[in-house]
Amino acid sequence: MTNTILNHRTIRKYKSDPIHPDLLKEILISGARASNTGNMQVYSMIVTTNVLIKEKLWECHFKQDMVKKAPVIITFCADFNRFNRWCKIRKAEPGYDNFLSFTTAAIDAIIVSQNVAIAAEDKGLGICYLGTTTYMAEKIIEVLDIPNGVVPVTALVIGYPDESPELTDRLPIEAIIHNETYTEYSDGDIKYLYSEKESLPFHKELLKINNKETLAQIFTDIRYKKSDNIAFSKSFLKVLDKQGFMNND
Amino acid sequence: MTNTILNHRTIRKYKSDPIHPDLLKEILISGARASNTGNMQVYSMIVTTNVLIKEKLWECHFKQDMVKKAPVIITFCADFNRFNRWCKIRKAEPGYDNFLSFTTAAIDAIIVSQNVAIAAEDKGLGICYLGTTTYMAEKIIEVLDIPNGVVPVTALVIGYPDESPELTDRLPIEAIIHNETYTEYSDGDIKYLYSEKESLPFHKELLKINNKETLAQIFTDIRYKKSDNIAFSKSFLKVLDKQGFMNND
Repeated sequence: MTNTILNHRTIRKYKSDPIHPDLLKEILISGARASNTGNMQVYSMIVTTNVLIKEKLWECHFKQDMVKKAPVIITFCADFNRFNRWCKIRKAEPGYDNFLSFTTAAIDAIIVSQNVAIAAEDKGLGICYLGTTTYMAEKIIEVLDIPNGVVPVTALVIGYPDESPELTDRLPIEAIIHNETYTEYSDGDIKYLYSEKESLPFHKELLKINNKETLAQIFTDIRYKKSDNIAFSKSFLKVLDKQGFMNND
Repeated sequence: MTNTILNHRTIRKYKSDPIHPDLLKEILISGARASNTGNMQVYSMIVTTNVLIKEKLWECHFKQDMVKKAPVIITFCADFNRFNRWCKIRKAEPGYDNFLSFTTAAIDAIIVSQNVAIAAEDKGLGICYLGTTTYMAEKIIEVLDIPNGVVPVTALVIGYPDESPELTDRLPIEAIIHNETYTEYSDGDIKYLYSEKESLPFHKELLKINNKETLAQIFTDIRYKKSDNIAFSKSFLKVLDKQGFMNND
């Protein structure tokens, strides 16, 4: 188990082999065993294998190859629709059309997604998270017929790996741990904590290719630009409003 | 592994035994192996064991006994502070003070938390998520000295279990899975999917104790009330603004 976690690699190349429905079901059941708020289970998993629908999702997810190639894509949603429907049928007035309720459901959906990821990897499957889910939520809602009260928050592609990548670098563990309370970093701390990352040949190569002076500039100027972040912030907040989660008064 | 996931129980009663620092470190390292956006690792874990600070956290978390009794509480934060500091030192201008960047970091922090939860359970420890973290984020920020660019999104108490609860009920798996696209439920579907939950003796007892007609009313009128959700929505949105994540223009 711990081995499955420690050996995690994101897989971007997949064989076309399908996942047996029984195996997939077992993995999804692992998802549903996760901790969740008040046992309300305010999340859904949309499991897409159909080639035509996957092609539409591929367009949403910045046309990343693996979305077409992997046999399964699972879209994890914060979902108060089912719970609200139940409340109304049972003479109860739901008050879950607000930002806190979205946050609660989103957190629970993400916890489910990581259970699914680990269960899949434990069975020899590979996974890749699609961070593009929040960027493109509006379009994904259209493609997957997602109703009011439901918001996609992440997605996983799952399938049999067709590559064996190396373990990815991480910051020294002390970079991300604070003892007792949060300890602010000195400039020296920051330089030390990022020094190994900055010295990796792979990252030095990136600087040359992109003609940048520092690795940080690769992130700010190319990979995660302010202008993109602002545009996606606006569209995701619009999605929350449209799906009925911004009635905060 | 899959067994660890399938056997998950939330533990609310703990022995006072401490967790050995080497074991705790091993568990935290498992957290850091999780998938994360662009390998930016925009999250932090604040590990609190000090009795006086735990007492303050106990007050934040609605005075739930386990927060005092369990030896360790880990607060998981969306953290762009460290990354922004690095960018500035390396002549890069970070554009991560917006809602999308918060969402990205929050999702990554939650994925880390579930890795930590599973790694802990795999070592015979018990865990309990504290959903109160988002409700009380403003106070927690004060107690844990959390700076701008950082927001607590969940917390786990971890320790050796002093109870062996039964497996908790779940909706039938088909309730939370949608094939290909989202399929809207009929009223009959909803009644069927919630029927087992409604018929549990434990839930019938709850109706009597609380003098309610339906289980759904226990949620809407007592456990997760609209007025509380609205109040917590306002305070959490205020926290996002104050911590510097709402510059979306």
